[in-house]
Amino acid sequence: MNARTKLTVAYLGRGFSGWQRQDSARTVQGDLERAIKNLTGVESVAVVGAGRTDAGVHAAAQVAHLDLPVSIPPDELPRLLNFRLAWDLRVRRARHVPESFHARKSARGKHYAYRVSWRQADLPWRHLRSATMPAVDKTEAFAEACRLLCGRHDWSSFTVPEVARRGAVRMVFRVDPVWRRDGLEVHVFGEGFLRYQVRRMVGALLAVGGGRMTTSDIFDLLDHPRPGSPLPTAPASGLTLERVYYRCSPRITG
Amino acid sequence: MNARTKLTVAYLGRGFSGWQRQDSARTVQGDLERAIKNLTGVESVAVVGAGRTDAGVHAAAQVAHLDLPVSIPPDELPRLLNFRLAWDLRVRRARHVPESFHARKSARGKHYAYRVSWRQADLPWRHLRSATMPAVDKTEAFAEACRLLCGRHDWSSFTVPEVARRGAVRMVFRVDPVWRRDGLEVHVFGEGFLRYQVRRMVGALLAVGGGRMTTSDIFDLLDHPRPGSPLPTAPASGLTLERVYYRCSPRITG
Repeated sequence: MNARTKLTVAYLGRGFSGWQRQDSARTVQGDLERAIKNLTGVESVAVVGAGRTDAGVHAAAQVAHLDLPVSIPPDELPRLLNFRLAWDLRVRRARHVPESFHARKSARGKHYAYRVSWRQADLPWRHLRSATMPAVDKTEAFAEACRLLCGRHDWSSFTVPEVARRGAVRMVFRVDPVWRRDGLEVHVFGEGFLRYQVRRMVGALLAVGGGRMTTSDIFDLLDHPRPGSPLPTAPASGLTLERVYYRCSPRITG
Repeated sequence: MNARTKLTVAYLGRGFSGWQRQDSARTVQGDLERAIKNLTGVESVAVVGAGRTDAGVHAAAQVAHLDLPVSIPPDELPRLLNFRLAWDLRVRRARHVPESFHARKSARGKHYAYRVSWRQADLPWRHLRSATMPAVDKTEAFAEACRLLCGRHDWSSFTVPEVARRGAVRMVFRVDPVWRRDGLEVHVFGEGFLRYQVRRMVGALLAVGGGRMTTSDIFDLLDHPRPGSPLPTAPASGLTLERVYYRCSPRITG
């Protein structure tokens, strides 16, 4: 019996060429599928992610589903899979879900965090999930820019033309900056994000913070969406997929 | 003018096949020498380390020296080299030192820390420098074993026969356990350590903590040194070279 199983996985993005399986590069999906094949002996079990994180992007709780071809109690899956995975990719939780659950199609929202550090890391295990950038000040313009980015907008200016062409209207619920002594976190909550959208939102915010853009420029980019706008894209190393939200579903225990 | 320069470097050992240069594997010395060649344009500048950490072992402050073939202010070296290094290897400090300074021969002592976690890491950036092992209790036998390991001993039982043959008497100043809620740190200070010595000291301590060895066994291993003893070697992933001690030397500023 093929039991649909939901996995919650965490990874440090630095060692991966993103989520999506590739023939000649290490990816999260590729590593997970290899571990499942090794565990079950069954070839080609597909692992479907809630979204495709780009090369270098981290995840604290990416969600994926698969149809497990052998009977394994879900509580034992994390240990069995982690034993077959490298240290920078961990399965945190596994549980059986109804057949109707689909990691991508059932997702109702996502939370991303972007971490910026003003200080060069002198220890590699500090600022592991941060991008190092010149300091910006906590200004009213920055706060105003965060508020402008909330709401239902056409995000064509914040993604690549091929993606924008397929429809770029998405709801962003919140953009919350958290100022730290030697850096900044920007927490972004939305129903879904387009390729590069979060990194370009942060790129725009930091440009406002650094005085290279104004809040009117942001208003204009949202009001007159233009694919191919020259918005700066903040580096992948600062971005973490923190959580994927689903409608509450009845829990099926294995 | 070739200026002798002392570097303090930090690395996360997981991505390296140890310190020492190898033709076909990534090593810390290899990466540093490549970065220096790239920066100076000078072929084959040797970087001499205070000691050769094994594959997977981390360092917070490994020390190395080199003879810099071009004139670069030492304060600018960390930035210039880090720009040419991967994220998991950082140059923390650089300064000019007298010609007589030798990273290995001038070293007077070393501090290693071994970190053990009782919990499987569910986030890759937690317990990054720890080894996961079954929990042991804080007992009087464990404390007694730590005391037994201090002092001037023949460490033949704690290293490999080829190393023991060259003389294995070394002074260990302190062995300090620090108990945490979900793990343990063992801090070891000594004038110098043989290959695998710290990891086998920790292996022995954890065997005492787990009831598989007694303090008499440890006393016996020190009192009757025998190369090739079957002492367990704790995994490399928990070991960090924390500091290398030198006699105070007059500072030469560049």
